[in-house]
Formats: sequence, C-alpha cells, structure tokens
Amino acid sequence: MPIVALRFESGALWALDQTALPWQEVELELRTSDAVADAIARLAIRGAPLIGVAAGFGVALGIAADPTEDGADRACATLIAARPTAANLAWAARRVRAAAGSPPSPGAALAEARAIHGQEIAASDAMANHGAGLLASARRLMTHCNTGALAAPGRGSALSVAAEMHARGRLELVIATESRPLLQGARLTVYELGRLGISHELIVDSAAPGLIARGAVDAVIVGCDRVAANGDVANKVGTYGLALAARAARIPFVVIGPTSTVDLECPSGEEIEIEERDPAEILHVGATLMSPPETPCRNPAFDVTPAELVSALVTERGIVRDPRPGSVAALFGPP
Amino acid sequence: MPIVALRFESGALWALDQTALPWQEVELELRTSDAVADAIARLAIRGAPLIGVAAGFGVALGIAADPTEDGADRACATLIAARPTAANLAWAARRVRAAAGSPPSPGAALAEARAIHGQEIAASDAMANHGAGLLASARRLMTHCNTGALAAPGRGSALSVAAEMHARGRLELVIATESRPLLQGARLTVYELGRLGISHELIVDSAAPGLIARGAVDAVIVGCDRVAANGDVANKVGTYGLALAARAARIPFVVIGPTSTVDLECPSGEEIEIEERDPAEILHVGATLMSPPETPCRNPAFDVTPAELVSALVTERGIVRDPRPGSVAALFGPP
Repeated sequence: MPIVALRFESGALWALDQTALPWQEVELELRTSDAVADAIARLAIRGAPLIGVAAGFGVALGIAADPTEDGADRACATLIAARPTAANLAWAARRVRAAAGSPPSPGAALAEARAIHGQEIAASDAMANHGAGLLASARRLMTHCNTGALAAPGRGSALSVAAEMHARGRLELVIATESRPLLQGARLTVYELGRLGISHELIVDSAAPGLIARGAVDAVIVGCDRVAANGDVANKVGTYGLALAARAARIPFVVIGPTSTVDLECPSGEEIEIEERDPAEILHVGATLMSPPETPCRNPAFDVTPAELVSALVTERGIVRDPRPGSVAALFGPP
Repeated sequence: MPIVALRFESGALWALDQTALPWQEVELELRTSDAVADAIARLAIRGAPLIGVAAGFGVALGIAADPTEDGADRACATLIAARPTAANLAWAARRVRAAAGSPPSPGAALAEARAIHGQEIAASDAMANHGAGLLASARRLMTHCNTGALAAPGRGSALSVAAEMHARGRLELVIATESRPLLQGARLTVYELGRLGISHELIVDSAAPGLIARGAVDAVIVGCDRVAANGDVANKVGTYGLALAARAARIPFVVIGPTSTVDLECPSGEEIEIEERDPAEILHVGATLMSPPETPCRNPAFDVTPAELVSALVTERGIVRDPRPGSVAALFGPP
C-alpha cells in the first residue's frame, strides 16, 4: 500500500507524524495554520515539496478561520516563518495567499492548495521517469536523508527515481545514509525502501565518502531544499560531502526536485539562509543524552553544494545537465 | 588532573572503560591476555597508540601466565586478532613477544611493554610540539573522533597538538565531530576538551564539509590507525570526507600519529584491511534501537585517505610535508 504522508479531508489536514515513524503510524489532525506551522517546525511534516504542500493547506486553513486581509497575511507569514531554507514553503504559501484574492476567499484558497498538491504528485512521476532515463546504466545508488513519499507528494523526489528504476527491474541496491541528527535515513528511508521491496544497506553518514571511493555505488541521488539561479543547491547537511566524494570518484551526482524548489531570485548559494536548529538534536539520540547537556553545539540543518559539483538537476520539466545560471532559468521557458 | 587511560600496577592492566565515559569513570582490572583482547575488541580501550600499548601489556600478561613458546605465541596472536586495522596493535604485540626471548621471559616481556608505554608518552609530547609549530598561524581547528589522552598515552596524538596550542595561548576553538556510530567525539573528545578548558563546539559528522567550506576552521587535524608506505592513511571512518573538504577549501589537512602507526610493509591504502564492525552499532544509538532490527547495514570502521590529500604527517620523529613513498620511509633514517 502506498504511503500517504498528507491528505486534506473533512476540513482538516491529516499528516503522518514522521517523528513517530518507523515505530508508529499515527496521523495528526491539523485544523489551524498554527498547528500546521508547528508540525512543520518540529519535523512531524518534512521534506521540501511536502512542507510546501502542507504550507498551502495551512494558509487555506488560516483563511477559512479568518477570511480578512490581516488573517490571510498572518497565516501566510506564520507558515513562511516555520522553516527558512526550503524554497517550497514560501512559494506555496504565497501562491495560496495570492489565489485567495481580495477580500480573501476560503474556497479559492483551498482550491489552490489542492492544485499545488496535485501538481506536486504529477511532478513526482515526471521526475521519476526523467531520472530513471538519465540513470539507465546505474544499478547501485547512494542516497541521503529521506526523499521518498514521506518527503514529497506522490512517490517522492530522489527516491521516486529509485522506485522507478526498481519498477523497471534495473536496481540492485540503494545505500542509505542514516542522516544525523534526526536519522531520517535510518528511520524513514529504510522504512520506505523496505515497503518498496528494494534491496538496501544502511550506513553512518561519514562512511559514505569512503564507500563511494571504493566503488560501492554507480551514482549518488539527493533531493534539494532550494536551488539558486546559478545551480547551487541547498540540501540536507552532508550533501556537499557526498558531492565532493562523487566528483573524486567520477560518478554522477544527481539532484532531483520539483521546480517549486528553484528560487530564481536567489542568485547563488551564498545568499541562501542556512537554518540552525536546536543543539538538543545533536546532544540526544532518540531520548538518550550522549554528551553533557551544556556542551556547545552547531547544528546547521543544510549545506550548499556548488553547481560545479552537480552532474544533473532533474525536475518535472526536464533535466538540466551541468547546471549553470542560464540553464536553470531555461526550465521555466522564455522570459 | 590529567586523564590516565591505562596503567600497569600490581600485576594488572588498569584501563579506564571508555564505553562508560563521559558518564562514569570506571577502571577495568585486566589480568589476562584474553581480557585485554576483549577490552580492545569492544572498544573499552581504543585509539591506535593506546591499543598498541595495551596489546604490549596483554602479551606480557599472557607470557606471565604461560611462559612457554606456545603460550607466548598464543597471547601474541590473540591480541593481534582483536582488531585488524590499527598498525600499532601487531607492532607492539610482536615487539613484546620478540623481547621475551626464548624461552619466554615474563620479566623481559613486561619490561618491553613498559618501554613501549614510555616511548609513546614521549612521542605524544614530541608530536604536540611539532604540530603546534606547524600550525602556528591556525586559531580554529576541526578534529574527528577522539585522539586525546584516551586514544594515545600522554596527551594523545592529534588532540595533543590542540592541547599544546591552547597552552601557548593560541587556540580559539576546536570543532569536534560526534563520530558515529560510537560517538567518540560526542562522548570522549568533548569530555577531554572540557577538562582541558578548550572552547569547543560539537557537530554531527556530516556538517563538517559544509562548515569547512564556509571558513569555520583554519585547519583539520586527525589521528591515524595505519599509514602506508606511500603516505595513504587509514583512520576513523569519515576522515576521507574531511580531507576532501579541506582540500576544496585550501586549508591544511594534518595527520598526527606516532611512527608506531606507520607500516612500511604496506605499500598503499589499497592493501589496508578495513574492519567491518557489528551492524548493531549503527542500528542502536546508546541503548535505543533506531531502525528495524533486521535492517541490512554496512559498518566500515575506517576509511582510507590518499596521500595526495594529506598536507602533512606529524610524528614524534618529525614532520613529513606532502607525504610520498620515499619521504615516509625517511622518517626511520637511512636503511
């Protein structure tokens, strides 16, 4: 049975609580924009495309509760503030706010949120097909964090490519990094790969470069949280290290995400705000404290991979090989 | 008060149980070669130079219990089998076995084990001074795993350089990676840096490359478990990724270890056996199971950094800049 990470029914957004997986499959019932923003901030809902869709529904819920200009603006601002790095959040929130019109129409807002949801599901299928075509000769993949059905509507972003390659009978192995601090790889990707019936191995994050150097995989596939106009990619912390290792081993490093992740107004990775999260995420693993609680920490949630290390950017609109400023913008057609 | 990771007194090897740190400071009382080998295998005693010293005492304990040729050979083999990658283990075990003579003399064996211990303490001080001189202009360092007094007798290997720079009033910050799966950075390095009064920040392993790219540190210092004749370095898994990031950022990547870690009989990193450890180390963090218990895992404990990425190898005998086959051998003087 496919995973449904989000659904909107009976006036509420129902979201699989990703902090409880893989041990419990619990749906959260979210009825306010604040509740949606909170679920996004604490990663109960996560993955750039998925938080975009959730944000769209969150703004629609806010407008339904308070269909004034102020109410609509406040709902939009609340959602955008939930997490700063992923481009999809602000993109979807603003799109729903704009579609609501003036005075804000709850019905138009909800219709737009549903349209975004449908669009991202279609994007997942398109990315899966483009990516599986691009990686036709690869048999063993490495991936980072979680980029499947829990991260993006439909079959996901990067992991949708693995799912499609598996469906075509061409995938032998996916090596999944555990993705500290919150172990989205160990908890979520392994869970999804198991449900998909894809052979997999779990590794600690720092084992990835050495295994790539030893020829353990044919390509590295990752998602993205924001793609700058020049092709620089912000994604889950650790992505840059994988890109360096893939380059050194001369294997493809492929970034997969819907165009809702592309931010043409951001000229390069240097301008991307990197979210710093709570040190408690590092000091604890699960419920266990691993270091003295007063230990100073730095906890950047993302890093930036320069475009020059990206072999290809796969979107629902097509593939950009060796992304450069002009080629990324060209995805969106003539200006 | 300085940390004493190992001491030999009253016919026993007393070792701080590193699996209990930082929460409990418990000494293990080890009276047999099997007990020492077991403590090394389960990482109660760890760090390449420290397991070398422990192995020396372990062989001496075995010879004391059974001073026959068979008994001495068996003790030596038991210690060497405890862990395969670190060069120091076999080096020290064979040295004590050889010094015991024929028929094996328990007194000569113990004297040799004590000599190795004293030699490694002196090596730590020499490495600290060489390294602090080499890195005279650095103020902020990144380090990996644990390479202090818990990893090598005296003040340690790489961390002894940080300690010496701190003593000289020149160190502003050490960024320590947590070092999954067993969190030697989070548990041990943070503990040592705190005791030394050195400002520090803890990060997850995969945050290191991005922080290096953003200019967070001036140099990366690591220890080593085996240095091949051509200068390739086997060290804690994740070291290679740090080396790639340091090279991309054009900052020094400095490897620090006593010459007991150098294996001139090993031509290159390709010939180094990489220990694969129990998947349970990945699936659990502390006592908490993080993935379904049947999840397939790969758990290489080490990776290999090619010599071309090593800016300098610091040993007690001096510094090898840009290590190459001839320059590593030259540490040992004319053949």
